Amino acid sequence: MPYNGALSGADLVPASTATTASTSRGFTPLVEVRRGAIVESVHFGAIAVVDSRGQLIASVGDTGTPVVLRSTAKPAQVLPLLDSGAAERFRLAEDEIAVMAGSHGGEPFHVAAVLSILKKIGLGKNALQCGAHPPYHRPSADALRRRRRKPSAVHNNCSGKHAGMLALAVHLGAPTATYLETTHPVQTRIAKRLEGLTGLEGRALPTMVDGCSAPTFAMPLRHLALLYARLAAGVDGDAAPDRSARRVAKAMRRHPEMVAGTDRLCTALMRIGRAGLLAKIGAEGMYGLAFERDGAGMGVALKIADGEGQRARFSAALETLRQLGALRRKDAAALRARFVGEIRNHRGLRVGDVAPIFALL
Amino acid sequence: MPYNGALSGADLVPASTATTASTSRGFTPLVEVRRGAIVESVHFGAIAVVDSRGQLIASVGDTGTPVVLRSTAKPAQVLPLLDSGAAERFRLAEDEIAVMAGSHGGEPFHVAAVLSILKKIGLGKNALQCGAHPPYHRPSADALRRRRRKPSAVHNNCSGKHAGMLALAVHLGAPTATYLETTHPVQTRIAKRLEGLTGLEGRALPTMVDGCSAPTFAMPLRHLALLYARLAAGVDGDAAPDRSARRVAKAMRRHPEMVAGTDRLCTALMRIGRAGLLAKIGAEGMYGLAFERDGAGMGVALKIADGEGQRARFSAALETLRQLGALRRKDAAALRARFVGEIRNHRGLRVGDVAPIFALL
Repeated sequence: MPYNGALSGADLVPASTATTASTSRGFTPLVEVRRGAIVESVHFGAIAVVDSRGQLIASVGDTGTPVVLRSTAKPAQVLPLLDSGAAERFRLAEDEIAVMAGSHGGEPFHVAAVLSILKKIGLGKNALQCGAHPPYHRPSADALRRRRRKPSAVHNNCSGKHAGMLALAVHLGAPTATYLETTHPVQTRIAKRLEGLTGLEGRALPTMVDGCSAPTFAMPLRHLALLYARLAAGVDGDAAPDRSARRVAKAMRRHPEMVAGTDRLCTALMRIGRAGLLAKIGAEGMYGLAFERDGAGMGVALKIADGEGQRARFSAALETLRQLGALRRKDAAALRARFVGEIRNHRGLRVGDVAPIFALL
Repeated sequence: MPYNGALSGADLVPASTATTASTSRGFTPLVEVRRGAIVESVHFGAIAVVDSRGQLIASVGDTGTPVVLRSTAKPAQVLPLLDSGAAERFRLAEDEIAVMAGSHGGEPFHVAAVLSILKKIGLGKNALQCGAHPPYHRPSADALRRRRRKPSAVHNNCSGKHAGMLALAVHLGAPTATYLETTHPVQTRIAKRLEGLTGLEGRALPTMVDGCSAPTFAMPLRHLALLYARLAAGVDGDAAPDRSARRVAKAMRRHPEMVAGTDRLCTALMRIGRAGLLAKIGAEGMYGLAFERDGAGMGVALKIADGEGQRARFSAALETLRQLGALRRKDAAALRARFVGEIRNHRGLRVGDVAPIFALL
């Protein structure tokens, strides 16, 4: 059941390979947390796997569940900048394009890349309207505190995205003070690109305010999976080559440290995964994943219903990639040990574990 | 449908007032997290409300769902100490009994109370086998770090419970090195007390290792609610006065700062709530609550399925107490604003909210 540009995808019924009988609000148990012999906690969620031809390959839960994209939208949010020629005009480097698509750790090399973009477009860091938070990367946050420096907007994990939005605004000669308004040319171009790549052309995607104050978008889970499949394949909604999509995917693959950072799962996945694996988290339990297979792109969209913590999202993402063959069994096990681990208590005793309980295929 | 000591409670079918048709693994959507006009995340869970006569008063989800008690067991874990006469022998103060039932913040007054208990029983802090973690109370953790001191076992939120277990071991002349083994007289007495108060007499409750290395217990959610109802009423499994239960409930009510600490919901609830409100969190999304009504005790047991974060647990607990009349509407709103709040982004813009969606009555 392909859903391409000709279909109004939001109305499509998914050809699910998994039962949805036990779903509630579209969500189904994905990950168990066990203590001794007992299941102590359960994380609900949904997963959609779609190829770049629009075929639903596998799913768990209801792939029609509406999700808010949050930072899984970032790779697509760079596309209008690349479409516009601004990257050439401002001589933006490939790692600078990667940081625009990232939720970075605020490490020194991330901050340097964002400051470099701002310098190239002739703006200061005060132009960033993302707000400030301490770097995600703990040692970088600690270093700031030791120097008694407050975190600024460049440390915000979204500062690359915002610098990219500002670069496009400058290139278009549009105002930079209002670049976050949904009617600003930067935002209308982003919305149009997202509609095209998700099979939702002509739909006015519902928008809401993201953690960084930029507009973000809601859509059924399977449409986000299609977006990721097309990013991996480098094709647009008409299956034609999409140069900008290829460029952002290449930048992410070649500079995975810019997309997340040191000791981050997205970065580790893009270094270790097969088939040009792309990995991008989003707030509230979101994960976008993509890889190439048989000349097509395969996209995965994952939502953990509760949206808190990392254990369920990481566990489910690794298990999904392992089941789909995008991650070798031993690599999945190593990443699982590093990023999920076992449940250990304050004395280091192993008292339980976190276990995915779904089968995609 | 009462379940008292004469019934083997684990087999009882709950007389639920709420539909369980939409439950999955016994859990049902309890709390929505909204961004703009969209439900972005959903927390699943279950709630049981039982009175001290064993009547199921209200529920959401399946009250037969097995849960691990974690720190909601603490008030009951103090009972064998109080039964034994050890409190008199060691001249334990009421606030010291309260800290034994608490998950404290590691604030200076908590640490002083635990050290005082240890001194009274002739042991040093090395006798505590709970392991170390930084104080929950952030300013206390910061103060330790500034003084370049490592957190020790006394700062562990469970150190009061462990000091109480050690006090009973010393009183009984039992070994103090093995007080955490399930066959140790301290632990067998605790298990027996829990079985009696939860309507599970003669059952060997499944045990698992808690975060602090002590045994903890699993049982259907409604039996934990019955335990809390009996604590509030001060009655045992035969509806006879239970002096130790009265004593621990009184200690918690008179020293709520010992049960949690500064800026903690349990403490605030016990200060503000009506009808002798008792409130005790447990790890992995647990909450035990109790109050008095019409000469009986009312117990609430709450489990958030995902077990992570505070927003769903706090939101559901406040809404439950408001619906049951144990919290005035304006007090519930004030605590909600303080402990749950709205969803705000990095620039402080309000972008969403956390909303309970269940009806108990």
